[in-house]
Amino acid sequence: MVFQSLIERKRDGGTLTTAEWQAAVRGMLDGEIPDYQVAALLMAVVWRGLGPEELSALTGAMLSSGATLEFSPGTPARIDKHSTGGVGDKASLVLAPLVAACGVAVPMMSGRGLGHTGGTVDKLESIPGFRVGLTLAEARDQVERIGCALFCQTGEIAPADARLYALRDVTGTVPSIPLISASIMSKKLAEGLTGLVLDVKVGSGAFLPGLDHARQLARTMVALGTASGCPTVALLTAMDRPLGRACGNALEVEEAIATLSGEGPADLLEVTLSLGAEMLLLAGIEKSGAEARGRLESALAGGQAREKLGQIIEAQGGNPAVIDDPGVMQQAEIVELFSAPRSGVVQRIEPRQIGEAIVAMGGGRRKLGDAINHAVGFVITPKPGDRVKAGQPIASVFAADEAGAALGVETLRQAITIGDEPVESLPLVIERIGESSGRV
Amino acid sequence: MVFQSLIERKRDGGTLTTAEWQAAVRGMLDGEIPDYQVAALLMAVVWRGLGPEELSALTGAMLSSGATLEFSPGTPARIDKHSTGGVGDKASLVLAPLVAACGVAVPMMSGRGLGHTGGTVDKLESIPGFRVGLTLAEARDQVERIGCALFCQTGEIAPADARLYALRDVTGTVPSIPLISASIMSKKLAEGLTGLVLDVKVGSGAFLPGLDHARQLARTMVALGTASGCPTVALLTAMDRPLGRACGNALEVEEAIATLSGEGPADLLEVTLSLGAEMLLLAGIEKSGAEARGRLESALAGGQAREKLGQIIEAQGGNPAVIDDPGVMQQAEIVELFSAPRSGVVQRIEPRQIGEAIVAMGGGRRKLGDAINHAVGFVITPKPGDRVKAGQPIASVFAADEAGAALGVETLRQAITIGDEPVESLPLVIERIGESSGRV
Repeated sequence: MVFQSLIERKRDGGTLTTAEWQAAVRGMLDGEIPDYQVAALLMAVVWRGLGPEELSALTGAMLSSGATLEFSPGTPARIDKHSTGGVGDKASLVLAPLVAACGVAVPMMSGRGLGHTGGTVDKLESIPGFRVGLTLAEARDQVERIGCALFCQTGEIAPADARLYALRDVTGTVPSIPLISASIMSKKLAEGLTGLVLDVKVGSGAFLPGLDHARQLARTMVALGTASGCPTVALLTAMDRPLGRACGNALEVEEAIATLSGEGPADLLEVTLSLGAEMLLLAGIEKSGAEARGRLESALAGGQAREKLGQIIEAQGGNPAVIDDPGVMQQAEIVELFSAPRSGVVQRIEPRQIGEAIVAMGGGRRKLGDAINHAVGFVITPKPGDRVKAGQPIASVFAADEAGAALGVETLRQAITIGDEPVESLPLVIERIGESSGRV
Repeated sequence: MVFQSLIERKRDGGTLTTAEWQAAVRGMLDGEIPDYQVAALLMAVVWRGLGPEELSALTGAMLSSGATLEFSPGTPARIDKHSTGGVGDKASLVLAPLVAACGVAVPMMSGRGLGHTGGTVDKLESIPGFRVGLTLAEARDQVERIGCALFCQTGEIAPADARLYALRDVTGTVPSIPLISASIMSKKLAEGLTGLVLDVKVGSGAFLPGLDHARQLARTMVALGTASGCPTVALLTAMDRPLGRACGNALEVEEAIATLSGEGPADLLEVTLSLGAEMLLLAGIEKSGAEARGRLESALAGGQAREKLGQIIEAQGGNPAVIDDPGVMQQAEIVELFSAPRSGVVQRIEPRQIGEAIVAMGGGRRKLGDAINHAVGFVITPKPGDRVKAGQPIASVFAADEAGAALGVETLRQAITIGDEPVESLPLVIERIGESSGRV
């Protein structure tokens, strides 16, 4: 194979065969194909896109570059959820134990925070002792034993994705729907799933803020997952404001536990139940959305979901006391109240500014390997459309030092807009995209 | 400068500033910008193109990465000609001494054969002893002394072009009109010219066979040269058949000398006079095309042009006896006559097949550094539209061995089509593109 001729074909809008994508991925990992040729091909893909068969082929080649979770016969349906990432999005922390408590196996491999969005793995590490670095064998055994494992992507899974992502990151080839899809799905398909639910965020706090791009990404991944033998459903959900009230690692764990205890914010609960219902339907445990929601609500009300989280924390070396006492997690040095500067209707709570402030306050990474402070963040009580009074405390800043607190307060001043008009926000669940919704 | 953000801007269809193009070229040469980032940028340029100011900036940055010819005050107008390359195109060998004999300084830096097209430098090396590897100082001194030097691109000139070209060659980023233009013009502008004539070939023997692409390339380079302070004119000329009768290095030198002696083929003479007239007009030596052609014809008829070639050969260490006796050059081991297989009208003489056969017969390179046999090639007497009789000898194959001779005969059988219809070929000079012809 002359790799250059493959670059030229993609450049001219042609397609590569499955064998050619396999050879390309193998050659890149072997070092036979130099990075500059891979970079040129990636830019040609950003330009020309990938056809459905090419996308399956590339994803398959990335998937088979590493190991996969192999479950024992008799393991129940294995369903995971993936979110494209947002601010305050702790749905995974509620959803994984909740769905596992309903009898679904949930092998949930997650990432760390990226840019202004938080990551499930960072949140879990707020819990003292919690070990996210499971081997695949440990993750599999834990899923078979207690129905769920929450772990971090390891080098065993899809090493080609790690190589490609590092190159895309420095060559301007990240924002490509097929490349994003291949990256996400090559890892998810390695989990040995029987079904997958995607939470594709829409709005200024999302990576792809526009509805059209989010829809296109969702459709691409749903088609890809389904074509790869993993029935996949996507929900487009609102990320034009933070999800829930808490934003920041330990604060979000606390809110997730509260939600499992029946005391969570309504929006987080609604998104979680919507995603969870899709997971139960994919697992074949219930036949209708209403029945699925009913089962999820019982598992919440009966305490089984909360109990499942305790089991997971204990299995992974975390301090299970956190369930009853969030105070075992790192606490902020400074907590500052923020009051509404005027009376009126909350117009906007800009999620990207909130997320970026958390990174700046030490709660996220500027570069790989940076240490983070799990305690910093925000709790913002009202939602867009809520009426507030001047002087009413509407948020708290949790900071590591005075500078962080000042930055946090200034961020809230800019991110929260109060006006007089009534407000129309995105519906929490904007759209459902399943294989039956067709492929455009 | 974060180079990645420049890649992203070009990817999204934006433009880079002059300072950014300079930093990009410098960073690439310094090794500060890795090849994979340069490759991604190049593919983004193939995709998005370059605006006129960007193209000037990139070309200027490539030009100033190396040395330039600096002529003494009082040196006459310095005009060069560049051809995009074809088969049998020995116009430079006639034109350079002819125009120099008319009082124009011609610092002609040329390349070697590339793909199926020949190169002036390879042709010159057919002359025993001829030294193409002049330093810039030697070239300048010779131009100032005898009005012309014929030399090979050195590492002193535009090293950024050499680096970029090597990368483009393996990353599928060669066929981009702005990148081709920047590559050609960064070298030509290094010659210290006061004017430049471009011979942009059109037809199946050219690198960009289509008229539209050739016209776009010509317009781009004319605008670029003129904007860079070097008035530039382009002629689009026919390369749907070989130029002249001889194809192959020594055979072409022989035909060029014959043309300087008034015995050349009409098509070669016509293209040479058309290009030469533009050179004299740019030099300000004549005011009209008719006067310019008249002066060129006198320099041919009076023997001054032929004498000038002798001076050049002598100055560069070549055996000047070649002027009177082409037999001092390497001769083919085998010469085989080819006769018309039927009576009729010559429909086509496919230049690309002829050029590729010369490479296969040892007269060109498959890879850099290959030794070549200067003697091999073809002489093809008729032109498309000429009437021939069955059995009439119409061509000769000059080969190094039996296999080459057989390949040569087979090539002629395929490349020369004889039929019954009258033929319409491209006019020899298809179109003139000067700054006045406007920029599309």
